[in-house]
Amino acid sequence: MGRLIARRPVLRLGPDGDRSRPDSIAVEEPLELRVNGKPLAVTMRTPGHDVELAHGFLHTEGVIGSLDDIRDARYCDSRDDEGRNTYNVLDLGLADGVPAPEIGVERNFYTTSSCGVCGKASLDAVRTKTRYSPADDPVRVPFELLATLPDKLREHQQVFDRTGGLHAAGLFTADGDLLVVREDVGRHNAVDKVVGWALLNHRIPARGCVLIVSGRTSFELAQKAVMSGIPVLGAVSAPSSLAVDLAAESGLTLTGFIRNGSLNVYTHPERIATLVRG
Amino acid sequence: MGRLIARRPVLRLGPDGDRSRPDSIAVEEPLELRVNGKPLAVTMRTPGHDVELAHGFLHTEGVIGSLDDIRDARYCDSRDDEGRNTYNVLDLGLADGVPAPEIGVERNFYTTSSCGVCGKASLDAVRTKTRYSPADDPVRVPFELLATLPDKLREHQQVFDRTGGLHAAGLFTADGDLLVVREDVGRHNAVDKVVGWALLNHRIPARGCVLIVSGRTSFELAQKAVMSGIPVLGAVSAPSSLAVDLAAESGLTLTGFIRNGSLNVYTHPERIATLVRG
Repeated sequence: MGRLIARRPVLRLGPDGDRSRPDSIAVEEPLELRVNGKPLAVTMRTPGHDVELAHGFLHTEGVIGSLDDIRDARYCDSRDDEGRNTYNVLDLGLADGVPAPEIGVERNFYTTSSCGVCGKASLDAVRTKTRYSPADDPVRVPFELLATLPDKLREHQQVFDRTGGLHAAGLFTADGDLLVVREDVGRHNAVDKVVGWALLNHRIPARGCVLIVSGRTSFELAQKAVMSGIPVLGAVSAPSSLAVDLAAESGLTLTGFIRNGSLNVYTHPERIATLVRG
Repeated sequence: MGRLIARRPVLRLGPDGDRSRPDSIAVEEPLELRVNGKPLAVTMRTPGHDVELAHGFLHTEGVIGSLDDIRDARYCDSRDDEGRNTYNVLDLGLADGVPAPEIGVERNFYTTSSCGVCGKASLDAVRTKTRYSPADDPVRVPFELLATLPDKLREHQQVFDRTGGLHAAGLFTADGDLLVVREDVGRHNAVDKVVGWALLNHRIPARGCVLIVSGRTSFELAQKAVMSGIPVLGAVSAPSSLAVDLAAESGLTLTGFIRNGSLNVYTHPERIATLVRG
């Protein structure tokens, strides 16, 4: 985990006095994503799984629609003061015929020409751009199983265990089998890495899958699930209003506050199997 | 709190059965920031205190250096489907002689022409851009007082109390008096609102102040503190490596894991008064 965890001195103060010791800290470094050699975006991320992150980002932003749209991915020759490659600049070449995105690709989801900048415009943009829809996915997930998934995710958060400083995202089957878990200082990056993994492993659209995130659910996280055809999204904490609205409109089952054997279902409860049995 | 909290139906499932009820959800809406009429950035935020948010964003990104650099702020005429102003587009006019920023202003902190994209380049960019430095601020904060500030912040998180879905940031005096608290679905936005409040109230540089944030400390949050001349930053959770490095280099006292009467001091412990007494 050389690039995932750094050691820094820390002074611990408490009621019983103080002590100095080296501490494990989650690494944060900038990653510049380029497409066909042109800078597109910079994100602060935890190094590792950068190719997945790039694939997931381009996919969930609607730049690419399938793995075939990417020709190659390579680190650029970006050197630090000591002449070492930083591995912080990644260039993705698009396949012939795939249009390059404009700078400011993220803005496409927040504003449309048809109306002002508002939540509804953001929902409209996702509906226009996604090639998949979770709406017709017939998967059912037992409530009792869903309630255990955050703990399963937690068991695999290796860097969090040592630093307490990372978000996590995990993709599960409807039977509760963990497919992949990724950690990052940025919550969006953790999900992009999971989506990128799924794309690289020919699992997009991710029908029948459950995405679990360690924190709150924003519009952007719900957008990433919808763009990937993921039918069920679960979070340890609360969703935002726009995440709920997007899920309702897109056929995504959105759950939250999965803690201590209980959870909230905000949208499309028909996929939570306890209800079907009842 | 009309635009801060939305009501949505929720199905609560637990070991004791299920029940449906309306739930309070934190509102998330896009805000487009324009400068001199030109779109600069879009952020997903909780509505309210948008003028503070815009001031804080422009200040911490180095676009403006003082309140005098802003001539006026006004909502644009952005209409939704029903013809109502969305209040989601805010235009800031710069004073004469203040250069307008380029699109993609955020990128300035992650890459410089002098070296590759790396953490050190990000640190260099902050040092180059900031007009203030916390390095020479002689303020001392008693450890026992600092340990109580997250609870004080928590007492004022009105929207969090009802939704569980918001980040918070608060600015305190070194005596522990709360100056301002702001909540937002985005952690950066909560800090930008606090910094914007300080700028609008002629408290930048915020010498002698303590900034408390409800989550983790990333590079960007540490950057916002340094750019504002805030000498002490405290967080409920962990910092990233680049936040620690920036704090160490900039003279910022960075603390974290402030819980249950204990805390970690990562940089510049000379401001934590227990040590001075010892």
